[in-house]
Amino acid sequence: QMPRGNLETIHHRALVLAQLRKWLDGLRFRDAFECMRKLRINLNLIYDHNPTVFLDNIEIFLKQIDSINHINLFLTELKEEDTTTTMYPCPSHSAVGKEGKKVDVVCDALRSTMETLDPQKYCLCILTSHVRKTTPELETALQKVHELRVNPPGGTSSVSAEEALKYLLFLVNVNELYEHSLGTYDFDLVLMVAEKSQKDPKEYLPFLNMLKTLEPNYQRYTIDKHLKRYRKALHHLSKCGEEHFTEMLNLVKDQRLYSDALELYPSGSQQYKTLSVAYAEYLVEQQQAEQAGLLLWRCGESTRALQAFVSCTSWRNALAVAAQIPLPPQQLALLARDLAEKLLEARRHTEAALCLEQYAKDCEEAISALIQGAAWEEALRLIYLYNRQDIIETDLKPALLEAHSNQTSFLESQKALFIRHKNRLSVVRELKAKASLELFGEDGPDCADAELYSEASSVMTGSHLGSKYSRSNSRISSRSSKNRRKAEGKKHSLKEGSPFEDIALLNALTQIITVVDKMREEVHSLLKALVLFQFDDAASALQRDYSDLLLLMDKSIPDIWSENLQPGQNTLTGPNSTVNSIVASFQQQKPAVPQQDTEALAPPKMRNSVKWKLNILK
Amino acid sequence: QMPRGNLETIHHRALVLAQLRKWLDGLRFRDAFECMRKLRINLNLIYDHNPTVFLDNIEIFLKQIDSINHINLFLTELKEEDTTTTMYPCPSHSAVGKEGKKVDVVCDALRSTMETLDPQKYCLCILTSHVRKTTPELETALQKVHELRVNPPGGTSSVSAEEALKYLLFLVNVNELYEHSLGTYDFDLVLMVAEKSQKDPKEYLPFLNMLKTLEPNYQRYTIDKHLKRYRKALHHLSKCGEEHFTEMLNLVKDQRLYSDALELYPSGSQQYKTLSVAYAEYLVEQQQAEQAGLLLWRCGESTRALQAFVSCTSWRNALAVAAQIPLPPQQLALLARDLAEKLLEARRHTEAALCLEQYAKDCEEAISALIQGAAWEEALRLIYLYNRQDIIETDLKPALLEAHSNQTSFLESQKALFIRHKNRLSVVRELKAKASLELFGEDGPDCADAELYSEASSVMTGSHLGSKYSRSNSRISSRSSKNRRKAEGKKHSLKEGSPFEDIALLNALTQIITVVDKMREEVHSLLKALVLFQFDDAASALQRDYSDLLLLMDKSIPDIWSENLQPGQNTLTGPNSTVNSIVASFQQQKPAVPQQDTEALAPPKMRNSVKWKLNILK
Repeated sequence: QMPRGNLETIHHRALVLAQLRKWLDGLRFRDAFECMRKLRINLNLIYDHNPTVFLDNIEIFLKQIDSINHINLFLTELKEEDTTTTMYPCPSHSAVGKEGKKVDVVCDALRSTMETLDPQKYCLCILTSHVRKTTPELETALQKVHELRVNPPGGTSSVSAEEALKYLLFLVNVNELYEHSLGTYDFDLVLMVAEKSQKDPKEYLPFLNMLKTLEPNYQRYTIDKHLKRYRKALHHLSKCGEEHFTEMLNLVKDQRLYSDALELYPSGSQQYKTLSVAYAEYLVEQQQAEQAGLLLWRCGESTRALQAFVSCTSWRNALAVAAQIPLPPQQLALLARDLAEKLLEARRHTEAALCLEQYAKDCEEAISALIQGAAWEEALRLIYLYNRQDIIETDLKPALLEAHSNQTSFLESQKALFIRHKNRLSVVRELKAKASLELFGEDGPDCADAELYSEASSVMTGSHLGSKYSRSNSRISSRSSKNRRKAEGKKHSLKEGSPFEDIALLNALTQIITVVDKMREEVHSLLKALVLFQFDDAASALQRDYSDLLLLMDKSIPDIWSENLQPGQNTLTGPNSTVNSIVASFQQQKPAVPQQDTEALAPPKMRNSVKWKLNILK
Repeated sequence: QMPRGNLETIHHRALVLAQLRKWLDGLRFRDAFECMRKLRINLNLIYDHNPTVFLDNIEIFLKQIDSINHINLFLTELKEEDTTTTMYPCPSHSAVGKEGKKVDVVCDALRSTMETLDPQKYCLCILTSHVRKTTPELETALQKVHELRVNPPGGTSSVSAEEALKYLLFLVNVNELYEHSLGTYDFDLVLMVAEKSQKDPKEYLPFLNMLKTLEPNYQRYTIDKHLKRYRKALHHLSKCGEEHFTEMLNLVKDQRLYSDALELYPSGSQQYKTLSVAYAEYLVEQQQAEQAGLLLWRCGESTRALQAFVSCTSWRNALAVAAQIPLPPQQLALLARDLAEKLLEARRHTEAALCLEQYAKDCEEAISALIQGAAWEEALRLIYLYNRQDIIETDLKPALLEAHSNQTSFLESQKALFIRHKNRLSVVRELKAKASLELFGEDGPDCADAELYSEASSVMTGSHLGSKYSRSNSRISSRSSKNRRKAEGKKHSLKEGSPFEDIALLNALTQIITVVDKMREEVHSLLKALVLFQFDDAASALQRDYSDLLLLMDKSIPDIWSENLQPGQNTLTGPNSTVNSIVASFQQQKPAVPQQDTEALAPPKMRNSVKWKLNILK
């Protein structure tokens, strides 16, 4: 049996909390506070219980508590956590999302009230409120201590600078306080803190004395740098005049403070230019050559800007700068050829053609680039603009026919792959359905399905296909190599019998549909060019093939993606089903797939509104 | 009680079918056939039971049946329906998808076997097999009758032409047969059929006599036209020589047989050109002016082609044709301006600029078009190419600042709308959840939610926004007017309390996300231009705004679209739940929405891989 005395101190928490809530609602902060202290209930509740009421009645709170120590206790116990949802949840309490930083809000509110009421009396509490902020305002606190020292207050209840500093040192680590006192650039304050600390004067005095000999801005810069406050350091150093510019540049480079540094100088100045060049060098290293180019250009460093633009194939800017310099025609042409080459590598044929035509004045190369990029209409435009109809027979027509044959075989291979994946998918689904039926103890039709999993119908991945179409003439090759890479990334799961084979198949099908659907514009433009040169049969055949494939895909989508949308409800309920089986069968409709694969569950959208067919073809 | 005699004729269908299947499996077609005739079982079952076996054993079938009438009976009873799945389903029978046209397959297979075995004996059956095809082959059947008449067979079992024709008339309507006999262009045959028919010789003889006087090709054309076989008519008319070309052109126009007609003439001929022009006129009427242009161009009608291309703003082709004609420089410039105007109306600024620059030789207008289209880099390129830096101050910079302010306010409005919709959505969902809890007899927290439905938080539709940004300087205006149209189309369901308000909100949110996400490239290019001209503050602000909004959307997507992916399972099962409540709560997670709205259930994808931020901005 428990000794009687202990029983008396046992309080039922729910009862206590109910009482506290009543008190707080009645603004009886003192009773609440006393009780909470005694029963070790977290003081945050005073605020959390009803933040608005508390903030509206801070003066009443301060007057009721009326003890520096207690107020300090409250301030030090503050934390961001909302105790009404964590420690002391209340049944009828609806958690309203409180925004902003609670600790900062309470500290600021209390301090502002205390400063109105009696700054001297609440001196220590005010210091606490500075120190307790999310980012402690140590400089401000130190500044207040310093003021106490310079103008000691007269009142009896007032605190001396000595006491205040002592209290601060109790709240904050001494070294931290010393660093921050340095940050005020106020040597009296620094000395005051240093004296109170256990620091060896031989350590800090020489440094302080050295600082005192420096020019004010450079002094502040030195302190900032010592405190690793580089932005401030930069600011002060920039005021130290021309002779310190190299030091400044090094600081900027070391700390990567380029943007900050640029703001300190007028945009026309030499320093601005030097800083921009340094920044640009850094940006080029960071693979941001275009931005480097912009910075260099705007500060007048045209040649360097040109280099930067060329290095990232920002060809419009490069050519603009080149024209501004201005580059001699010969060099401009070379530059244009250089850019065109890079653009061709990036398969940006039309842009390459523009460089070649307008700047290198080489219409033949330009037309060739356009033909290579399957930009048939644009190629024709240039052919007639420069009266080079000979190119039609020598280059354009052969390219058209090759593009036609590439497109045809690409469509054929995609169609075969699509059908194979689609058929395999229905096999996999049937197997899964049977497996799940057996799981729930229902008798599925007895057939040997285990072997079906390793059935011989091999699933080809996209990787077999790309290699055939590596000619650069049409855009197919870049597309299929992308496919290949994608397909390889997921190859593991396309393997027959893998647990997510259905998902992998859905992904593969989505990919094929997307790729084929994207060809509408390209096929349309090819068809028009074929018709123009009387290749009507080829055009008709391509139109038929492509149209058939699109139709096949469009019609297959409901079949392939139906399961995710319409639960098959026939086997769901019944005399043999249990709650678990029902829930499980719902969940089984949405297979638990790895997160990155969920997109496969949504059917791809085909752009049927894009009209690509020619009416004049059969 | 039933009289005894009747009972004997009652057969249990299942037993009968089982017996039939056994017979058919044993290739005892005769027994099966007799039984089926007697018990009026559909003869299709003979084939449907096992198509492959039947087709492999046609000879056995024919020999066992060995009756012309019975074979004809079988042929006439054929239909596409698979009786094993419709009339006589078999429990152990797995429905294998049979492809192709069953009736045609059986007819052709039987006929080919009969023709090998004894064409004379099976003569009538062969005729039946022609007539029974999906598209009856009446001409072929008539031809066979005609052969019988010309070369009467010698055998005793053989059928006379007379008999055969009589049989045909029994199978086919007499007028139909007459028309088809005409279609063989064989007047003997026509007369033979006509004599058998009840037709009045005064009706058909003059027509036949008239036909006989015509030149053979024109004769056939006249017959084809009479039979409305316009493609054949065209073919024959084309052989009648130059003097009938006008008649042919009229036929082509009347029957829109342009493609067919073009195939009948060499592409260099005058007729080909005339037909192309006619076709082009028709295509222009059908809003297919570009295809019309291609046809005209390729047959050498450059001026007409130019008109067609201009009318549909197919500007590259138009300029190519114009250069080929060649148009005098003055006119070419006018043409280019005309095209540029149309392109500007269609907001295709870059293309308009190209026309103005290269063909109208008006760099100032070209640059202005580019600035209007927010193609800053391209505008700069031309400014420096033509050494018109003055335009930077007069036009480019003001346009940049205006674009900046437009983008800023557009983002602001989209953000406000997004937040409003998002908040309303969570209100609607809460209400729906409560409503469904109450539906299942569970006690939801008692609060008055009915009023909440008509809560005062008004939901703004996109339509308020567009009007502010109607300046043409940036692409915003076209975008928001599109939004407006879309939003108006669905306004009814965004109304508070409408049954699919949540779906409407999801749609609206998807739209906002898509529109804002699409701005990445545009904002990126604007930021670069702003930086180049030292508008760093404006650029930083825009980058911050846009980045914040994208982040807000990205973070909101899981909240907004969570319900569709993760069923909240806490209220699903429990002592009070029933099978119906569980099923219903699953289904309720996927609201039964109108079909066209289901896409709203999938979260929109944000293109977070598109890098648009500038590192040099804060």
